[in-house]
Amino acid sequence: MTKQELIQQIKLKKSFLCIGLDVDLNKIPAYLLEFEDPIFEFNKQIIDATHHLTVAYKPNTAFYEACGIKGWISLEKTIKYLNDNYPEIFTIADAKRGDIGNTSTMYAKAFFEDLKFDSVTVAPYMGSDSVEPFLAFEDKFTILLALTSNKGGLDFQGLKIGNHQLYKEVLKTALTWKNSDNLMFVVGATKAEYFKDIREIVPNHFLLVPGIGAQGGNLEDVCKYGITKDIGLLINSSRGIIYAGNDDNFASKAKEKAKELQQEMSAILAQL
Amino acid sequence: MTKQELIQQIKLKKSFLCIGLDVDLNKIPAYLLEFEDPIFEFNKQIIDATHHLTVAYKPNTAFYEACGIKGWISLEKTIKYLNDNYPEIFTIADAKRGDIGNTSTMYAKAFFEDLKFDSVTVAPYMGSDSVEPFLAFEDKFTILLALTSNKGGLDFQGLKIGNHQLYKEVLKTALTWKNSDNLMFVVGATKAEYFKDIREIVPNHFLLVPGIGAQGGNLEDVCKYGITKDIGLLINSSRGIIYAGNDDNFASKAKEKAKELQQEMSAILAQL
Repeated sequence: MTKQELIQQIKLKKSFLCIGLDVDLNKIPAYLLEFEDPIFEFNKQIIDATHHLTVAYKPNTAFYEACGIKGWISLEKTIKYLNDNYPEIFTIADAKRGDIGNTSTMYAKAFFEDLKFDSVTVAPYMGSDSVEPFLAFEDKFTILLALTSNKGGLDFQGLKIGNHQLYKEVLKTALTWKNSDNLMFVVGATKAEYFKDIREIVPNHFLLVPGIGAQGGNLEDVCKYGITKDIGLLINSSRGIIYAGNDDNFASKAKEKAKELQQEMSAILAQL
Repeated sequence: MTKQELIQQIKLKKSFLCIGLDVDLNKIPAYLLEFEDPIFEFNKQIIDATHHLTVAYKPNTAFYEACGIKGWISLEKTIKYLNDNYPEIFTIADAKRGDIGNTSTMYAKAFFEDLKFDSVTVAPYMGSDSVEPFLAFEDKFTILLALTSNKGGLDFQGLKIGNHQLYKEVLKTALTWKNSDNLMFVVGATKAEYFKDIREIVPNHFLLVPGIGAQGGNLEDVCKYGITKDIGLLINSSRGIIYAGNDDNFASKAKEKAKELQQEMSAILAQL
């Protein structure tokens, strides 16, 4: 998918929502455990109920790896279901990978070519040659961790390098890499005012924003500082949507929660 | 496996070698492609030929993920083969994972409980709560990336934080985390003199050292500064050993190369 196609989808659906498919067998409705592939069945129902309200889905690979081979089969089926039925959806493998050059190429092929995700999240610690192999793929996006929303996020990301913090150095340095147009960045929603400084460094790149809802971030505040003329934001919600219901109504409950966020987004977009 | 058991194995085998099982279908002998599971067959033969010369094996998960479900089956079979036949071997999942707390727990369970690896490599960028879930597992080791041996390794790891570099801050900070005894660190062999400073910060922890051989590092120099009374080093070689031969002699060629390194190590240990 191209960046322009993603922007078109956002305008069409009046939504810049991303739904995180972090599927935990201990949290899904018990009746689904009777199915041959409970995780895929859960995802399929969530996707069918919410695809018109969201522009992206983001399975976190940890939840699938935790189920071994079965989990990888569920992940393969989920991405294939999305690509076959909703090709207009932007897909994100939340894998936080990164390794030396030729090894990163292996990861990039796994997620972009074999699984056919549109994008993958990547950790920056190993530097340029750990990320550039991902950037080499045309019309695929590398979503680099910059400022994460977890408790320990600032342990290293917040360290002072000269007169600014490490996460800003990551943003600045990444812009110098080959094919940096194929970058997006993960920026947590915990402090909305950070987005002001971040937009001075990366005025045009898309930001994937976790931390709205369960982790405490506020949508309106994030948009105030983070939104661009091309929107430039994908706001992720995982647990708040997919676990809104806990019995056979889970998909319609998820739809309700997604609709709430989509309507907030629609109102914000109307003001642009 | 406990740290004492690992040290005993090193003393018994007179080796602190780790063999990287980075298996690429394009590089293994062509005749193996006839097998039902060429990657597992390759690993099995390498392991059978070298297990007495090495104390650890380290499959890099990227090479397995690149083959999809089949690759994960090969990885499962490889770790099971090691645990069933050579339980004295220390096993490392070179996965470079890391995510927010509850998600890191998923990864830890996947590698420690389901696959039954003794250790996993983890990226530090997301801070304490992305690593501590791995450290919570008893007699399991979390090998944190500190200073990597790749070209871009110093892009961020080399940045000055006050009067020292980021990778030293990572080492220092990690020691303050809960269950920090379960840490080891990845330190590349590119500049042996770095080990002097590193040993001032982490005098007792094991270091996993890639970059000997194909990436240009020198074993004797690394040991000069890095070795401790408990040895404290695992020296990794991947391509230099597993691709030493390219036809049906590949396992015996790998054995020769592993033997060369083991003999160098034996000589170094004799001088302690």
